[in-house]
Amino acid sequence: MGVPGSTSQYDIYEVYVSHVLLAAFSNRHDAIGLAQDVIADLATRGVSSSIQMLDDVRDVPLSASDLVVSLGGDGTFLRAARLAHSAGARVLGVELGRLGFLLNVPPGLIAQEVEIELNRSTVEERLALEVSISREPRNEFALNEVVVERLRNGQMVRVQTFVGSEEYLTYSADGVLVSTPTGSTGYNFSAGGPVVDNTLPVMILTPIAPHFTIDRSIVLGDDAEIMIKALDKPACVLADGQEIGTINPGEFVTVRKSAAPVRVVASRSFDLVHRLRKGLREGHA
Amino acid sequence: MGVPGSTSQYDIYEVYVSHVLLAAFSNRHDAIGLAQDVIADLATRGVSSSIQMLDDVRDVPLSASDLVVSLGGDGTFLRAARLAHSAGARVLGVELGRLGFLLNVPPGLIAQEVEIELNRSTVEERLALEVSISREPRNEFALNEVVVERLRNGQMVRVQTFVGSEEYLTYSADGVLVSTPTGSTGYNFSAGGPVVDNTLPVMILTPIAPHFTIDRSIVLGDDAEIMIKALDKPACVLADGQEIGTINPGEFVTVRKSAAPVRVVASRSFDLVHRLRKGLREGHA
Amino acid sequence: MGVPGSTSQYDIYEVYVSHVLLAAFSNRHDAIGLAQDVIADLATRGVSSSIQMLDDVRDVPLSASDLVVSLGGDGTFLRAARLAHSAGARVLGVELGRLGFLLNVPPGLIAQEVEIELNRSTVEERLALEVSISREPRNEFALNEVVVERLRNGQMVRVQTFVGSEEYLTYSADGVLVSTPTGSTGYNFSAGGPVVDNTLPVMILTPIAPHFTIDRSIVLGDDAEIMIKALDKPACVLADGQEIGTINPGEFVTVRKSAAPVRVVASRSFDLVHRLRKGLREGHA
Amino acid sequence: MGVPGSTSQYDIYEVYVSHVLLAAFSNRHDAIGLAQDVIADLATRGVSSSIQMLDDVRDVPLSASDLVVSLGGDGTFLRAARLAHSAGARVLGVELGRLGFLLNVPPGLIAQEVEIELNRSTVEERLALEVSISREPRNEFALNEVVVERLRNGQMVRVQTFVGSEEYLTYSADGVLVSTPTGSTGYNFSAGGPVVDNTLPVMILTPIAPHFTIDRSIVLGDDAEIMIKALDKPACVLADGQEIGTINPGEFVTVRKSAAPVRVVASRSFDLVHRLRKGLREGHA
Repeated sequence: MGVPGSTSQYDIYEVYVSHVLLAAFSNRHDAIGLAQDVIADLATRGVSSSIQMLDDVRDVPLSASDLVVSLGGDGTFLRAARLAHSAGARVLGVELGRLGFLLNVPPGLIAQEVEIELNRSTVEERLALEVSISREPRNEFALNEVVVERLRNGQMVRVQTFVGSEEYLTYSADGVLVSTPTGSTGYNFSAGGPVVDNTLPVMILTPIAPHFTIDRSIVLGDDAEIMIKALDKPACVLADGQEIGTINPGEFVTVRKSAAPVRVVASRSFDLVHRLRKGLREGHA
Repeated sequence: MGVPGSTSQYDIYEVYVSHVLLAAFSNRHDAIGLAQDVIADLATRGVSSSIQMLDDVRDVPLSASDLVVSLGGDGTFLRAARLAHSAGARVLGVELGRLGFLLNVPPGLIAQEVEIELNRSTVEERLALEVSISREPRNEFALNEVVVERLRNGQMVRVQTFVGSEEYLTYSADGVLVSTPTGSTGYNFSAGGPVVDNTLPVMILTPIAPHFTIDRSIVLGDDAEIMIKALDKPACVLADGQEIGTINPGEFVTVRKSAAPVRVVASRSFDLVHRLRKGLREGHA
Repeated sequence: MGVPGSTSQYDIYEVYVSHVLLAAFSNRHDAIGLAQDVIADLATRGVSSSIQMLDDVRDVPLSASDLVVSLGGDGTFLRAARLAHSAGARVLGVELGRLGFLLNVPPGLIAQEVEIELNRSTVEERLALEVSISREPRNEFALNEVVVERLRNGQMVRVQTFVGSEEYLTYSADGVLVSTPTGSTGYNFSAGGPVVDNTLPVMILTPIAPHFTIDRSIVLGDDAEIMIKALDKPACVLADGQEIGTINPGEFVTVRKSAAPVRVVASRSFDLVHRLRKGLREGHA
Repeated sequence: MGVPGSTSQYDIYEVYVSHVLLAAFSNRHDAIGLAQDVIADLATRGVSSSIQMLDDVRDVPLSASDLVVSLGGDGTFLRAARLAHSAGARVLGVELGRLGFLLNVPPGLIAQEVEIELNRSTVEERLALEVSISREPRNEFALNEVVVERLRNGQMVRVQTFVGSEEYLTYSADGVLVSTPTGSTGYNFSAGGPVVDNTLPVMILTPIAPHFTIDRSIVLGDDAEIMIKALDKPACVLADGQEIGTINPGEFVTVRKSAAPVRVVASRSFDLVHRLRKGLREGHA
């Protein structure tokens, strides 16, 4: 599955497409039914495709020329993006969810849209984050944000932040987050952070419900290495809303830009004003 | 322990004092050592006193004329206030903690301060909250705030609010809280809520990290009955930072003014400007 | 015009109505045309009425039993309320404007609505503010808010606040405002202040674009006397958006509750949730 | 005055220095006295210097190799930077003012500091803005921010924003501002905007006290051309706090990156954490 030989993984380039992976969570029966329709439709268009459950994504054969199509809401897209990112493949989001800041292709036009996207010569690249926990060797990936927050309801954590070797502010708060531009209209927005154009090479450090401290976000370059240290209580670490570990007092989390971006097609769905208007409309519905 | 016969539980009145309860958590060895010193000192002043661990406060004999002295930080005070409130007793806070918005008597002057307070003819009454969960018969107490929030890290809850029979706003958020004036400089402040004069008969409804919804607090009268309903996911309910239960989608929490206020002595420690200046100083230290 | 002898100016009571004053600004030709229709319609209902231009409201004969009907937007209502307040008369708002947080009677039903309101036995009383400038003897009135702000564009003022004899915070800011509950969804909201139930006896002190200072509102009781002192530059003083004077460094403004409230009929138009939903809808239109 | 021949105006390069301009406003007698001392001191070090009043900066002879030293507060620095920018000269700030986010060289060490800076081979380049008003041919310069705001106290303006050819949000507000990273801790911060690392190629669009509209900043790339159009009332346009014109309804202001950056020496004074800590300290003093 997948034709090797794409010369550049990160630049915009023409691609040979061999296969489409329709990605969904196994408990979304609507998505799985839809995937079956799309597979049949794509077959009539001469495009090879299959279903991939996102519940377990170990050992998925995938190449840089494949296209992962997310069928679901934002959570599904974030997981599908992570899968695509692991192989340098592209990702296309089809919105079946409610909040939907990420995706907006109507279900009935999916196969046609997929075919169009397969023949596109460009992709849009999104800054992604790489996060590691001080005592652990592995790195995790995030397209929206990394959160370090109180482990238990009703608590507050005290965390100290560093940028490179320089000490920044210390917060007593529910937590702090580091957001990408893509994630700026997500949890970052809820926590009071600014909206950031998707294409900017920046990261946003935003405290969540800080107590009697500066509550403003700080926008940093994408070459910044941000360290977040727990001071007095254990803290929970999340990447795109998934818990990836905990840190004890004195331990820290390091967040930096991922070497590879996420490659997104049909990026008109990420349009800033579109996202804002949609959010405002739904937020107040 | 305690002399019955105080004619009014809620108005300011002269009191016969029979006993002082020095309240602390059992793992605060500094507080317990201090309590022993204070008991000795109070004995030389002819005042009867004893230690009360706050870890388990069932069946504590206590009357409306007693004085509970909290030895610890804000968490200790909130627990001691709850104990005092159950019998209509007064509460005095001695600050051993760090954040300390509530308490400010220096340790070395405790016995003297307690004696002064015992002879005071006035108390300050604080609005307290009573919270009940739809399917449970019991009520819980809160001096600072009631929080209804996501059960698990990385989630968001959707909650609908009602005031009396009238539907209010619906929030997608980390949670919502209902704060008393006393609690207005606590979690309410972190979540963006206003500072409220302690003596006002109001409650404050504040969303916590709301997503694309109005993020402003709403100040309501203390006769309001506020209902908070979970819409799509279970939510956690906390009173003064202690988890008191969970609600499932469709279930709700009701918050109203407690029939009895909390009776606080040495209330100069609650002074608004003092609290703000202190908070700002410590927040930015 | 007007029947004297209403026994209480401030309590809710039954009134003899003698006259209806249709109030508008002279440059609102739509409002004046409408007023003429309403006068004719009211005449057929046996109700005496006349037009009152709001451009100059000196020497308007008015009694406590009269009803002032505001034809226009929020600015018209605020001016009409001020006129009505001067005689203890009631005020009814008919919305012809755009933002319209205050008023909501459809034009076509005005005469009928006025007749209904004339026969109502109740009015709703709104807290109003009285503001005085240190060196001037006269008091001004505000239904929404009093603002003390920089005199010139591009400047910042430094102002010190006091509540009673107690010093509060000092702000470097565009200005500070004191809002009534009625005004809480007006400029107070824009400046970040909380929404407050209209019936609460409180005032809200909110800084406007403060620089590196606490930016949170403070909610105070309606018995508070708030003093705002200019420290380094002259400041402009406004009541309900109208400039009423300036203060030099060292001079101050005093804001307190007006002895008489504003008496509003058809108060369902002030409904809190209605105002919020409308504001959100229009704000994002 | 000034040696020509610097090969690059914008890149970091070694410079021949011919002259130092000590810049101050004529009503700052302390600054002028200080300038005289510094001139004498620099003469003993073999450095040519003179005083330049900032009240009128037409026809100031200045070359790219000169150094402008601002003696005063933030306002003085902004004006001196504008003067230096006009010739591609460098600027160094000496803080005599109060807020002082920009400058921090102690007065007693000025001549020594100037000599050190003269021999530095690097400068730090700051993004500056160029602003033009629709009906006027000239461009104005801003190092901190461009503001479009209500012309008169007590009003609100309705402004529509565009980025390139794309319509963005419309605000009813006191105004909107476009800030550079340097200006992010200035008025942008007061209005609720994020702190931005000085070296990032971004601009920040922040509404000032918006009414029932999204109140969050939007961070855009420095290649964005931002248009701000007045909809219903005339608006005032300011660059770094100086009024530069007004626009009528239907007219607009265009803000883009200035072709030349501002070249700042002694840039450690711009350090982000330093600025935040200082601001928080002074804000709450």
